[in-house]
Amino acid sequence: MRKVAVLGIGQIKISEHWDISLRELATKAISAALEDAGMKRVDGLFIGNMLSGSLNHQENLGALITEWAGLHPAESAKIETACSSGGSAFRAGLIAVASGEMDTVLVVGVEKMSDAKMVETTSALATAADADYETAHGLSFVALNALIMRRYMHEFGWSHSDFAPFSVTAHQNAVPNPFARLPTMISEEEYSHARMVAEPINILDASPIGDGAAAVILVPAEEGSSRSSTPQVNVIASAAGTDRIAIHDRRDPLKLKAAEISVSKAFSQAGVGSQDIDLFELHDAFSIMSALSLEACGFADRGQGPRLGLDQEITLDGRIPISTFGGLKARGHPVGATGIYQIVELTKQLRGEAGANQIEPARIGMAQNIGGSGATVVTHILKK
Amino acid sequence: MRKVAVLGIGQIKISEHWDISLRELATKAISAALEDAGMKRVDGLFIGNMLSGSLNHQENLGALITEWAGLHPAESAKIETACSSGGSAFRAGLIAVASGEMDTVLVVGVEKMSDAKMVETTSALATAADADYETAHGLSFVALNALIMRRYMHEFGWSHSDFAPFSVTAHQNAVPNPFARLPTMISEEEYSHARMVAEPINILDASPIGDGAAAVILVPAEEGSSRSSTPQVNVIASAAGTDRIAIHDRRDPLKLKAAEISVSKAFSQAGVGSQDIDLFELHDAFSIMSALSLEACGFADRGQGPRLGLDQEITLDGRIPISTFGGLKARGHPVGATGIYQIVELTKQLRGEAGANQIEPARIGMAQNIGGSGATVVTHILKK
Repeated sequence: MRKVAVLGIGQIKISEHWDISLRELATKAISAALEDAGMKRVDGLFIGNMLSGSLNHQENLGALITEWAGLHPAESAKIETACSSGGSAFRAGLIAVASGEMDTVLVVGVEKMSDAKMVETTSALATAADADYETAHGLSFVALNALIMRRYMHEFGWSHSDFAPFSVTAHQNAVPNPFARLPTMISEEEYSHARMVAEPINILDASPIGDGAAAVILVPAEEGSSRSSTPQVNVIASAAGTDRIAIHDRRDPLKLKAAEISVSKAFSQAGVGSQDIDLFELHDAFSIMSALSLEACGFADRGQGPRLGLDQEITLDGRIPISTFGGLKARGHPVGATGIYQIVELTKQLRGEAGANQIEPARIGMAQNIGGSGATVVTHILKK
Repeated sequence: MRKVAVLGIGQIKISEHWDISLRELATKAISAALEDAGMKRVDGLFIGNMLSGSLNHQENLGALITEWAGLHPAESAKIETACSSGGSAFRAGLIAVASGEMDTVLVVGVEKMSDAKMVETTSALATAADADYETAHGLSFVALNALIMRRYMHEFGWSHSDFAPFSVTAHQNAVPNPFARLPTMISEEEYSHARMVAEPINILDASPIGDGAAAVILVPAEEGSSRSSTPQVNVIASAAGTDRIAIHDRRDPLKLKAAEISVSKAFSQAGVGSQDIDLFELHDAFSIMSALSLEACGFADRGQGPRLGLDQEITLDGRIPISTFGGLKARGHPVGATGIYQIVELTKQLRGEAGANQIEPARIGMAQNIGGSGATVVTHILKK
């Protein structure tokens, strides 16, 4: 297979965009990515989206967005793996270019969540879990994560405040990011006294939803350099794995087995280990997920994820910077778009275009997108 | 890229399966396909499904179905392009094997439609059209097709009864098919006097929805023959295209431009023309779609699709047999699953396992899956 490069990136600010429709959100990010790449046509579009059927009464997003972006008759499809839809769409686009089936691919992640009532959104998000054996009992998606966090705290002896650095750091990194949903500092004090959502998860443990879109252009690596003056960013690993969807069906609910599988494949493809990763855009939908991801990817021992935060190792100048533009927690989590925001941010870091958020050195970066409470996990490694 | 073969096929009867859940529908078809291929593991699963979020409150189908089929940690994703989701999932799986990224892929199309109220289903199906500029005006999906059919009759001078052969032939072919939703003969008389749905489309112009699942196993062609004693069926072309999603935005609403694009690419890949196709599993969601597909694929001149039916050229022993196991009209149309039923039926024909439905000769067959009223079209050509 051919090696593949990220040639263009585009994103829009995550917000409540009352005046911008689903198709327009996508089109804005696409235009930015096409302009960044200096391109006007692509062979195919892959759309990362989870909720358009439930919340926007719109499927067939592939054809719709291809038309509105002025790119038809390019072929197109929507890829859905719950909150990892963006990562899965990126992987599908990558395979299409790597295979030689397509020479230029655009991957856009988009989600429009503001138009629905809160209860509709909560209900739609719960479709990431097992409808018959989890949500049928009244469990929301945050409640499922609360069960995991509570068990984790009990098992490993952490208190709630030990998770503060995940949220505090994310918010700190979001401040200079013009695309972030919540570009505001928070203190440990505010974190500890925030309004409870589902004990022990409070509002500052949880990532905010929003309307957003991000896009990337993929081309064969050998063509990338000739087309662009920015440093070329290549994809050096792509891997996905699944675990049982319901938490109660997992042998060890405190281990992200699908993350372990996908990251171990990715490390092997790239010929690197966790010590070689300069930054990690992880899936901090809830602070507990940061801890579990860091452990599954070999950055911390089992049960020791919070230690990295307490030891200041996840900040921009730490041993393993995470959520460098705010992560899901503060950049925001428009679910199906999130995986593409991660790739866009990783690319900015590797290009050296991250401004106040720039980490040094930024040679190899990893992004990990999680669908459901660990059921689908997609990992990508990019290199300058 | 590597050539790819269809090694195993499986399907279940399309019906109102009140006692079988979405995940179980998929698992039954998967088990049948694995058994047919003599396999127990696959590297990846691609799920063709359109409506699980809206009608079953279940997304993350990839992880869910992978688990219930006992296939995790295989990676997985759901692919959605409205009613062509099955065809698009097949194409994604094909690229994954052709590229060398995966050695064994399972593609399953599944849809569970009986559990929802009629109005919910009608509303969910309309998400295939343009939510803001078509359905917002109260147009259902059948109403959109009725507008096309009415204009077509006006433009080319056909009467409603001229479309009868499409439905009569489909029902005739469904009779010996144990997996068909409506395995019953209908007469031209019954066709002409059937209950009106949206003039001029009556209930016998429209395909029935239902609960169904079909699955196929894809492997590299060079491995296929050694693994199975049945005649090997290879995929010799795969192509997709898009058109504007809203009918009123198309320059010519009586032409399936995306079908023309995808079939012309497919013919070029396979090095064949319409005269080489022995059978054609087309997307007869409505009888007007049969006419338009036959025209777009070069089997009839513009406006002359109904002539093929009236001249008996679409029957099992005609010049271009279509819907050889009943098509969408009588085998049934569980939307996201339909594209895989088409591939399963094509494979049975090419293997010579079609029994009473066998056409002779069956060397090269084509399947075409349409998403929306022609917005996304996916074409595959298979060869013995």
